[in-house]
Amino acid sequence: MVGAGKMGADHIERLARRIVGAEVAVVVDTDLSRAQKAAEASPSAVAMSDLGPALDREDVNAVVIATPGFLHKEMLLQALERDLPILCEKPLTPDAASSWEVVQTEQRLVAKRIQVGFMRRFDAEYQRLRGLIISGELGELLMLHCAHRNPEVRSGFTNEMLINDSVVHEFDAIRFLTGEEIRDVQVRLGRVTHYAHSGQHDPQHVLIETEGGVLADVEIFANAQFGYQVATQAVFEKGIVNIGEDGGPYIRSAGRWGGEVTGSFIDRFRSAYDDELQSWVDAARHGEVGGPTAWDGYATAACCEAGVTAQKTGEKVKVSMETKPDIYR
Amino acid sequence: MVGAGKMGADHIERLARRIVGAEVAVVVDTDLSRAQKAAEASPSAVAMSDLGPALDREDVNAVVIATPGFLHKEMLLQALERDLPILCEKPLTPDAASSWEVVQTEQRLVAKRIQVGFMRRFDAEYQRLRGLIISGELGELLMLHCAHRNPEVRSGFTNEMLINDSVVHEFDAIRFLTGEEIRDVQVRLGRVTHYAHSGQHDPQHVLIETEGGVLADVEIFANAQFGYQVATQAVFEKGIVNIGEDGGPYIRSAGRWGGEVTGSFIDRFRSAYDDELQSWVDAARHGEVGGPTAWDGYATAACCEAGVTAQKTGEKVKVSMETKPDIYR
Amino acid sequence: MVGAGKMGADHIERLARRIVGAEVAVVVDTDLSRAQKAAEASPSAVAMSDLGPALDREDVNAVVIATPGFLHKEMLLQALERDLPILCEKPLTPDAASSWEVVQTEQRLVAKRIQVGFMRRFDAEYQRLRGLIISGELGELLMLHCAHRNPEVRSGFTNEMLINDSVVHEFDAIRFLTGEEIRDVQVRLGRVTHYAHSGQHDPQHVLIETEGGVLADVEIFANAQFGYQVATQAVFEKGIVNIGEDGGPYIRSAGRWGGEVTGSFIDRFRSAYDDELQSWVDAARHGEVGGPTAWDGYATAACCEAGVTAQKTGEKVKVSMETKPDIYR
Amino acid sequence: MVGAGKMGADHIERLARRIVGAEVAVVVDTDLSRAQKAAEASPSAVAMSDLGPALDREDVNAVVIATPGFLHKEMLLQALERDLPILCEKPLTPDAASSWEVVQTEQRLVAKRIQVGFMRRFDAEYQRLRGLIISGELGELLMLHCAHRNPEVRSGFTNEMLINDSVVHEFDAIRFLTGEEIRDVQVRLGRVTHYAHSGQHDPQHVLIETEGGVLADVEIFANAQFGYQVATQAVFEKGIVNIGEDGGPYIRSAGRWGGEVTGSFIDRFRSAYDDELQSWVDAARHGEVGGPTAWDGYATAACCEAGVTAQKTGEKVKVSMETKPDIYR
Repeated sequence: MVGAGKMGADHIERLARRIVGAEVAVVVDTDLSRAQKAAEASPSAVAMSDLGPALDREDVNAVVIATPGFLHKEMLLQALERDLPILCEKPLTPDAASSWEVVQTEQRLVAKRIQVGFMRRFDAEYQRLRGLIISGELGELLMLHCAHRNPEVRSGFTNEMLINDSVVHEFDAIRFLTGEEIRDVQVRLGRVTHYAHSGQHDPQHVLIETEGGVLADVEIFANAQFGYQVATQAVFEKGIVNIGEDGGPYIRSAGRWGGEVTGSFIDRFRSAYDDELQSWVDAARHGEVGGPTAWDGYATAACCEAGVTAQKTGEKVKVSMETKPDIYR
Repeated sequence: MVGAGKMGADHIERLARRIVGAEVAVVVDTDLSRAQKAAEASPSAVAMSDLGPALDREDVNAVVIATPGFLHKEMLLQALERDLPILCEKPLTPDAASSWEVVQTEQRLVAKRIQVGFMRRFDAEYQRLRGLIISGELGELLMLHCAHRNPEVRSGFTNEMLINDSVVHEFDAIRFLTGEEIRDVQVRLGRVTHYAHSGQHDPQHVLIETEGGVLADVEIFANAQFGYQVATQAVFEKGIVNIGEDGGPYIRSAGRWGGEVTGSFIDRFRSAYDDELQSWVDAARHGEVGGPTAWDGYATAACCEAGVTAQKTGEKVKVSMETKPDIYR
Repeated sequence: MVGAGKMGADHIERLARRIVGAEVAVVVDTDLSRAQKAAEASPSAVAMSDLGPALDREDVNAVVIATPGFLHKEMLLQALERDLPILCEKPLTPDAASSWEVVQTEQRLVAKRIQVGFMRRFDAEYQRLRGLIISGELGELLMLHCAHRNPEVRSGFTNEMLINDSVVHEFDAIRFLTGEEIRDVQVRLGRVTHYAHSGQHDPQHVLIETEGGVLADVEIFANAQFGYQVATQAVFEKGIVNIGEDGGPYIRSAGRWGGEVTGSFIDRFRSAYDDELQSWVDAARHGEVGGPTAWDGYATAACCEAGVTAQKTGEKVKVSMETKPDIYR
Repeated sequence: MVGAGKMGADHIERLARRIVGAEVAVVVDTDLSRAQKAAEASPSAVAMSDLGPALDREDVNAVVIATPGFLHKEMLLQALERDLPILCEKPLTPDAASSWEVVQTEQRLVAKRIQVGFMRRFDAEYQRLRGLIISGELGELLMLHCAHRNPEVRSGFTNEMLINDSVVHEFDAIRFLTGEEIRDVQVRLGRVTHYAHSGQHDPQHVLIETEGGVLADVEIFANAQFGYQVATQAVFEKGIVNIGEDGGPYIRSAGRWGGEVTGSFIDRFRSAYDDELQSWVDAARHGEVGGPTAWDGYATAACCEAGVTAQKTGEKVKVSMETKPDIYR
């Protein structure tokens, strides 16, 4: 893990507690004490302040780069030199020329090594929408209406950062969804919110066209106050699809609006099953129980007995139970 | 893992691919070939047909029981004898008397060992509702309206199973939500759907009262055709809360209906970040890239450059890009 | 109009301003000054304190009864004697015996004369649900889950009134929806809200069965604080339908939840067209204009001209307009 | 009524059946037989083929113009000459120059006489949004995202008509909502739907800026297949408001999304009360009953009696009823 700031620390915690198949061996940060602090979250990790020696270690066979963007190019080149798999937080680099340099270096290797941190591609709703576009079920995609709203940003967040740090996600998402490169971009500045910091022209209206003629408008609003929202409405030949709404994705087609009903308990409770098992494993390692106990099993068995009798008689039936042993209190 | 049927196989896959901190050492099933097949999902697992020897192995220090309920009691007692942590799929046992036996055995140990598989307690919406009840934010809880709907059940699913296999989840959920034991149960049979199999009185109406006077009605509908749904509407002194709706949980209070807006990108994209990292780890172990590539990083950098120019000029700006190297095609 | 209280006054205003084909000739109230005040809302109305002479007037050929229920029987009998059409606010009378007397008197006439004020039958959502039940589109109706919630009631509102004034609407709605009479009723009292006035057991749980076996549970909650809601969830063999939700009615069937998309601008803007025309008529009678003016017509014409040019050039086109004449300011 | 086409016929029916305070005296159409046919819907109306003589009649004191737009100017001038109140269907006239002529003529009169048929201003949701903008409750309005979607249009519907007949409504609505004139307009043509007729570039993307800097993008989509939708999302400094969604208007502010709960039964059932009374009036004029009968009053009284007993006993109570008299069958 290179970079022990907020994003790096989050990734360390994720690798330690939720990701199967990888362990953090080294945390690198020029601020060694910050690296040490972040490394504590992972039993297997040591802290170092130099990238080169870290990459040379035997137990290092992949790299996550989570430093500020202006440092990426040198780090990427060092890791590519050692032919290591890289997960690089976005942006790849802060400008097209240096990104192109990285691309040229990588394409001389045997295989691609770099994955860029555009995490929206892993979001279930974006994937669902991408699937709908590919399927052709609703005809061709014609337009996209996108909104990217943050509750607020700090005063140092510049107009350029609105594009480079925020709209960059929309650029990638539009490319991901359409499967097309972007042809041109227009930005219109309108009325400014009183909540914008000095020098910020916020919100802005970005109008994007892909090489295939899909028009995508993006509202980028960095101080929207009410909360966070990333939403896209996709206009197809035969229907309209919303993702990023708090009420879940839905489709408007064939005279109906709405979404899909969950198909089964497995779909409905998938995360609950994962969390149940993880909770039990975590508790068991400390000699504890992480969920409902045998008493809960007993009490519900008593309820079921009353229920079956009630079912047969149509009457109200009392539930009869023993006193709860101390161990369950 | 004891039991290599559908539920057992699911748990093995979960432990192998998504759960950190535990590995399946043995899969036990009286049908050894089924155990062997299920064990394949976990590199660390061997198959056995007898529970006793499995529990005696040194590499076994916890047990998941996923066999039919009528086998649970004996298995639980064997595992408790060895003081092992147990995750037991619901029901604990099929009747109150045998459950009480298990409870009495466990409470003679130093600490609780059994967790029962009422996975709803780990569902985010149930937890949210439980939190609201505890907080007192909406006043006291007064009533619950519950619905438990399956698309269909097989013909052998009896009326008793409606209570023991389906309503049992509601019994536990009501106990979990209210923090109270259940005092009585009434069941009313009304009009029967044509989609019920012979002998099934479906749907049924169950009216439950807790010791604290909370009335909970449950519609149990095993052949509801349209899809799967487990929904609860909680009636508080100052508001109404819905969970299990496809459109997400929402609250009706103080003259407003609706839900909470996501607070930040971390909340919004939590799973995407997990999946991104897992995808990268999985791909990296095979020398591949599991997501957006350096080309995507380059292309978005080019878009951003055009965007910043567009922002400054108010004009439509063409995006200028090099030819895509073969490695990214 | 008999009765010049809140309900009567509302009906007078309605007849004067929104109902075509009838005019209020007389307002009757034992409190003559109240009758006079209410009569002012209708240019055609005079006030009287006695029902008999009012019913004998030549310009009276129909009666609306909006007095307290205990007065209804005598008034209904007087109006039936004169064979007049009657709209009687609910309840018909306060008890079954006196209602039966009214029914027996009416059925000796040539035709039915009495309409009872169960206005839910005229609500678009109830009618939609009734239509779905009749159509058989979702199979047979199996259960109903009803909630009737008021923000609060006055302290004199008794437990009996919960049934007679509130649940009475549900009784009629269930009869209307199912087309069946009601067979039996059960009421369960649970936990009481702190917002209930002394002597009120609120909320209550009513379980109703129709002669055809449809079970309907009703939550009647008179001090629900958050707002007003009358909602019904209908459980069919092949789907679930919600009405009375603030988000509009929707159906859960065939793996989808959601509602119908408006079919045309006529459906979407039906009320707007009515209100537009009424606003124009009302303003015209006072020599005024009740909506957008000729200036608005001119300004939009100028916008359209710019729009068509923009469409042809792809450029941003300025809208060119004359100065606005004083008359439009 | 001038013009007896679809729109004119609709207005005649509206005036005859739902509008209080006005009657159609004359229907004018150059096609006299069409005028005669339309006039049948109004008992008071005669048909004529010439506008002049019609405007000179004594019983004509207001005019509705519902002819094609290119005829409007001459008709408006004739009616203004007689100083009559006019409701003119949109557009006022087909171009800015002739509209300006009408405006100049009208402003020489004592008072405004012309109302233009932009009926969206009378739509409850548009009015609600306008109210929110005026109130300042969510801060200043910053942007508008508009969509105007028709299921399909006929092949003769030209690109200019997209602007003049469809976007014209958005022009007026944006002016109405913001209270500002429009400064400039841009139109972008993107990918075309296969459902567009030959010569139609559909959909189109219109970007509008008001004199106060509010940016409004409009998707105009004339062959959207799925249904009809006119929706606007308003972006404020402190929140986001949606209107025109099938699920009703809602606001996203202060960390919450959702809408307002109905305040009382009067709000909830306003239309039902109107329709109830109108239905009763209409039926009474034919000696019939237009809603629930005395039998319904009796039957619910019997239910209430059972309900009150059930409330006191906690038991299931049978409803006891007499046989239904023939008159109610």
